Amino acid sequence: MDQLVIVKIGGNIVDDDVSLQLFLKSFAEIKQAKILVHGGGKLATRLAETMGIQQQMVEGRRITDAETLKVVTMVYAGYINKSIVAQLQHYGANSIGLTGADANAVLAHKRKGKMPDAIDYGFVGDIDQVNAAFFNKLIQQSLVPVVSPITHDGKGQLLNTNADTIAQSIATAMSSFYETILVYSFEKQGVLLDINNADSVIPIIDSNYYQTLKANQQIFAGMIPKLDNAFVAIEQGVAKVIIGNAAELDQLIIGQAGTTIQNG
Amino acid sequence: MDQLVIVKIGGNIVDDDVSLQLFLKSFAEIKQAKILVHGGGKLATRLAETMGIQQQMVEGRRITDAETLKVVTMVYAGYINKSIVAQLQHYGANSIGLTGADANAVLAHKRKGKMPDAIDYGFVGDIDQVNAAFFNKLIQQSLVPVVSPITHDGKGQLLNTNADTIAQSIATAMSSFYETILVYSFEKQGVLLDINNADSVIPIIDSNYYQTLKANQQIFAGMIPKLDNAFVAIEQGVAKVIIGNAAELDQLIIGQAGTTIQNG
Repeated sequence: MDQLVIVKIGGNIVDDDVSLQLFLKSFAEIKQAKILVHGGGKLATRLAETMGIQQQMVEGRRITDAETLKVVTMVYAGYINKSIVAQLQHYGANSIGLTGADANAVLAHKRKGKMPDAIDYGFVGDIDQVNAAFFNKLIQQSLVPVVSPITHDGKGQLLNTNADTIAQSIATAMSSFYETILVYSFEKQGVLLDINNADSVIPIIDSNYYQTLKANQQIFAGMIPKLDNAFVAIEQGVAKVIIGNAAELDQLIIGQAGTTIQNG
Repeated sequence: MDQLVIVKIGGNIVDDDVSLQLFLKSFAEIKQAKILVHGGGKLATRLAETMGIQQQMVEGRRITDAETLKVVTMVYAGYINKSIVAQLQHYGANSIGLTGADANAVLAHKRKGKMPDAIDYGFVGDIDQVNAAFFNKLIQQSLVPVVSPITHDGKGQLLNTNADTIAQSIATAMSSFYETILVYSFEKQGVLLDINNADSVIPIIDSNYYQTLKANQQIFAGMIPKLDNAFVAIEQGVAKVIIGNAAELDQLIIGQAGTTIQNG
């Protein structure tokens, strides 16, 4: 089975021009077949503020109303996605930018609030299906898919979807065709045992250790959705998940840096 | 040779939700292989105003400075392109939204001001090459390309390119593979002999008649770039070019409405 490397790049790197360029250059140099999934960054929030769009937060989560969806579609699928594609072309990776609507790449449905509180999250999409055959066709044409965190419901509605979850769903779906390596890259060195100590990277986490860490509240809350996604990927056939610093991408892929997530 | 229909939809239709929906529904129903190229509309101008970006005009032409390029990339390649793709999916056309940067679909170079005035138009791209093999691959997968008027220079720079010219260049390039029909659709009935009389549609224009109309100043100035593009297409192998009302798309394609441009 050929290897496929799927890299998720986080919002803080997307916001930093110098870090982003270095990352894209090293991403373009990956020898294996590859897919990039990018997050949003702060540009959408800044643009919404400039446009006078109120950001609604419910229980710490941003509500994607119609105006906010318009802004994130412009920023994520337009500016960020196409700027990344143009740079990757410059670095020699023949890339193609996508949302979930393009070629029905990622089909989702609007999240329903859970009873009894029934929060309406607005135009937030939970993933139903990844069009693995389409991604495979692109890869077979030596194209590099670059995926923005916008999906659709197949009925004309675009939806805002978490980029970590998109990366996990694509990695899981592609595991039928490839030995898939999923890399969550961001500005930190990996999963830290002590959030205030950058040297406290945990090299390997298996599911038992993860349960222990969670029970002891030793995992930074913001890291939990990423780790949950990582374990879903591993349990559903992804060969390897690595979490670490975008500046060390080549080392992450060969498991020489960051935190490796494994079954067991 | 199979037929390929390439439709350019103008900005005024893109701005009008009802007209756009009707148009997209009829576009999705086209039986032949098809490509859609869309213009910009006024949303980009409005967003630039909201963001406090000054629009620079030189000799009646808008200058695309770095901030304006960011806005048109967000609006054209993000919001408009992805909204159209999501709607076409709903209408059963498996579409894929593209800029020229995606898969190196349309390569361009930054326009150089002509001596001696040497106007700097900013980030405006003149087309060098259309990746016809890539468009053909998509069509062979029964995908419908939806192209926004953003190109790139292959060196990391996105560029703003006229949608009429993109449609012409794609139609010309695809003529090696298909009997290509290029439709310029907008809010008017066709090329009018009298701009104040909607019934004065000229059914057929050949190049001799076009020269006469131009010499007699009977062509509305705004129509000249579109007609120039139409004649370039015809001269370079496009089978048919038709200019007419987006609301009559099915009639335009079979030459039963609008203005047909022909050689001779």
